Amino acid sequence: MKTIQGGITAPKGFIAHGLSAGIKRSGKPDLGLIVSDFPAVTAGVFTKNSIKAAPLVVSMKHVKKGVGRAVLVNSGNANCYTGEFGLKYALSSTELLAKMLGIKPADVLVASTGIIGKQLPYNKIVDALPRLIKGLSPQGGRQFARAIMTTDLKLKEIALQVTIGGKKVSIGGCGKGSGMIEPNMATMLGFITTDAAISLTMLKRALKRATARSFNSITVDGCMSTNDMVTLQANGQAHNKTIVKEGSDFQKFAKALEWVCMDLAKKIVHDGEGATKFLTIHVKGALHETQARTIAKTIANSALVKTAAFGSNPNWGRVGAAVGSLGINKINEHNMKISFSPFDKKEISITVDLSLGRGTATVYTCDFSYEYVRINGEYN
Amino acid sequence: MKTIQGGITAPKGFIAHGLSAGIKRSGKPDLGLIVSDFPAVTAGVFTKNSIKAAPLVVSMKHVKKGVGRAVLVNSGNANCYTGEFGLKYALSSTELLAKMLGIKPADVLVASTGIIGKQLPYNKIVDALPRLIKGLSPQGGRQFARAIMTTDLKLKEIALQVTIGGKKVSIGGCGKGSGMIEPNMATMLGFITTDAAISLTMLKRALKRATARSFNSITVDGCMSTNDMVTLQANGQAHNKTIVKEGSDFQKFAKALEWVCMDLAKKIVHDGEGATKFLTIHVKGALHETQARTIAKTIANSALVKTAAFGSNPNWGRVGAAVGSLGINKINEHNMKISFSPFDKKEISITVDLSLGRGTATVYTCDFSYEYVRINGEYN
Repeated sequence: MKTIQGGITAPKGFIAHGLSAGIKRSGKPDLGLIVSDFPAVTAGVFTKNSIKAAPLVVSMKHVKKGVGRAVLVNSGNANCYTGEFGLKYALSSTELLAKMLGIKPADVLVASTGIIGKQLPYNKIVDALPRLIKGLSPQGGRQFARAIMTTDLKLKEIALQVTIGGKKVSIGGCGKGSGMIEPNMATMLGFITTDAAISLTMLKRALKRATARSFNSITVDGCMSTNDMVTLQANGQAHNKTIVKEGSDFQKFAKALEWVCMDLAKKIVHDGEGATKFLTIHVKGALHETQARTIAKTIANSALVKTAAFGSNPNWGRVGAAVGSLGINKINEHNMKISFSPFDKKEISITVDLSLGRGTATVYTCDFSYEYVRINGEYN
Repeated sequence: MKTIQGGITAPKGFIAHGLSAGIKRSGKPDLGLIVSDFPAVTAGVFTKNSIKAAPLVVSMKHVKKGVGRAVLVNSGNANCYTGEFGLKYALSSTELLAKMLGIKPADVLVASTGIIGKQLPYNKIVDALPRLIKGLSPQGGRQFARAIMTTDLKLKEIALQVTIGGKKVSIGGCGKGSGMIEPNMATMLGFITTDAAISLTMLKRALKRATARSFNSITVDGCMSTNDMVTLQANGQAHNKTIVKEGSDFQKFAKALEWVCMDLAKKIVHDGEGATKFLTIHVKGALHETQARTIAKTIANSALVKTAAFGSNPNWGRVGAAVGSLGINKINEHNMKISFSPFDKKEISITVDLSLGRGTATVYTCDFSYEYVRINGEYN
C-alpha cells in the first residue's frame, strides 16, 4: 500500500471538474462534478439527522440502485429547509445532468453544503453545467476538491495504490468539513473513487467499517449536520478479479479504504474551525466498543476539556467529570485511570482506562478556541 | 407572595456566617456555615455524575436521616478525586463541627466547590471553625453567600414571604455557579432555608418539583459537575399548621419554593462564564414533557446556536439541525416551527413547536463567547 499523487481522479476511468457557478458571493469555486467513464458500483452513507437536506433525500433514493456514474456537488448553499422547491431543484439537477451526459437521473447523486434555509440559486447551476461538463478531465480531481470547500482552510485529498490479485488498484478521495462536525457524519462530505472490481455487498461492507472508525469517530463541535454524506464509486477498471467475499483481497481493499477515510477524517479535524490542537481520545477497558466510543465522544465534546486543551492545561478532573456525566454504573474514581501526553504540544492524546472489560475506541477532535467563537458568531 | 430582604437567614431561626479560611490563594472568603437553631426537616438533591466528590458521599448518607441542623461549605477546592483522604476530611469536618456545636455528625451536611483533584487543606478548615462558629448571626446570610462563590461575578440570593394558614412563612436561598453548568445539577450549589412547618415527605416532593423546572432546566456549557447539590432545611419556626399533604397550603409553599429555585437558577445562567446574553428555549408540541426537555436542552447546548446568539445571528437552521440531531421519528422540516424574539437584545427567546403532542418545557442558557474560552482555557 503506497500513497500516490492526486485525489479522486487518481483511479482509472474517473474524470472530474470544479468551477465557480456564482453560488458563493465570494466568487470562489462552488460547483463540482465527478463522472466515471463506466458504470460504477456505488454506495453511500448519510447523516442520521432527522432533518435531511433535499440532495440527501434524492441521493438516498438513487443510491439504492447500487450502480451509477456521476456525483454533482455544490458548496455555498446547503439546500436544506428549502421545502418543495429545494427538493425539485435537487431532483431537476440530476435529470438535467443525466440528459446532458446521456445517462439516467438515478445514475446521479447530488450533495450540497453551505448555509441552511436559503433557496438554491438553481438557474446558476443550470447555466454552469455545460462549462462544468466541458471541463471534465482525468486531472480534474483537485478542481473538484476546491469546489466543495466552505470554511475549510485547507484542501483535503489523498490517493493510495494497493496490489490486489496482481493488479494495481487505486483509491482516491477528497473531503470537506471544518465545523458542525460530530459523530455520525457531521457537516462533512467525502467522495471516494476506486478502480477496484468489487461487488456491491462487499463495497457496502467495506465502507461501513471504514466510516465507523474514521468519519464517525471525529467531532469538532458536537453539532450534527443535515447534509453529511460520503459516496464511494468503484468502476472495476483495475481489472482485478472481482472481490465478492471476505478473504485477503477484501482485507487489502478494506484496509486501504479505511486508510483513505481515516486520512480525510483527520484532515477535517486538523482543519476544525479555529483549531490550534489535534486531540486523540483513546478509551480502553470499557465493557464493549460501543461504550468505549460513547465515552470517547463525550470527552471529545466536552467544552471544558476542549478549552483546557486550548489553554495547554492538562485538567484531568474535567476528563473524569465528563466520563462520569454519562452516569454509567461501576465507573468511579478508583477504577478509572486517566493519562495525558504532554499538553503544550500541537498533538495531544488523552487515554482513559476503565478497567471494566476489553472494549476500546479512538475518537479525534480539536480544541475550542476564540477563533471558533469568532467564525460561528460572525458567519452569516 | 412577596420578596423580602435577605437570603438564607431571612427565615426565622437560622444563623450563618462566612469567612476566609485561606483555602483560596486570593484570600477571598471560602468557608461558610448555616445553622438552624432548632432541628430542621432536611432534604437534598445531588449530582447524577458517577464521579461524586467526597462531601457528596458524606452528605447523601447524612441526609437520609431527614432532619439536621447545619450545612458547612467550602469553595476553592472541590474535594473530588481525592481518594480516602478526601473522604476522611469530609467526614472529619462533620464530626468536628458537630462536637463544637453539641449536635451529631449526621446533623451536618457538607459541600465543596472549586478545583478537582487537589487535597483539601483540612487543617485550614480546622483552624477556621472556631471563628466561623463565633461569627454566626441572623444577619450572616450575605457572608455565607459570598463564601461559596468561585468564578461567580455576582452574589446570588433571594428571600420570599408567603402567608400559609394565617402565618407568615419565609423561604430564603443562595446559590453559586457560573461554569460546568448542565442539566441534572451542574456545578452549582444551592442552599435553601425556610421556617415553614412541613413533613419530610412533602418537603422532598416540593423540592423535587421545584428543581426539575429550575436547577435542572439550566445549562451553561453542557458539562455536568461532580459536586452539585442543593439542600433545603425547614425548621418549623413560622408555626404554621404542619403541611403533611397536598392542598392549598402545600401549593402555596411549593409555588414559593419554585420561585426561589427559579430565581437562583436564572441568576446562575445570567452569571454564566463569559455570558453576554440570556436565552430562553421553549419547546412545545412534543409528545411529552421529557421529550420537550431533551430537545430544549439539545438546542441550549448546541455550540452553533450559542455562538450564533453571541453574534446576534438568528440562524434558525442551526436550531433545526440541533433538534434533528436527536434522530426522533416524525420530526421533519415540515412540521417544525421555529420562531425567535429579536436577536440583538440581551434576552433572547427561541420557540420550537413540533406539532406532535402537548408536551412543553423551558430551558435557560447563555451564549458562548470569547470570554468563556478565556476563563476555561486559562483557569488553573
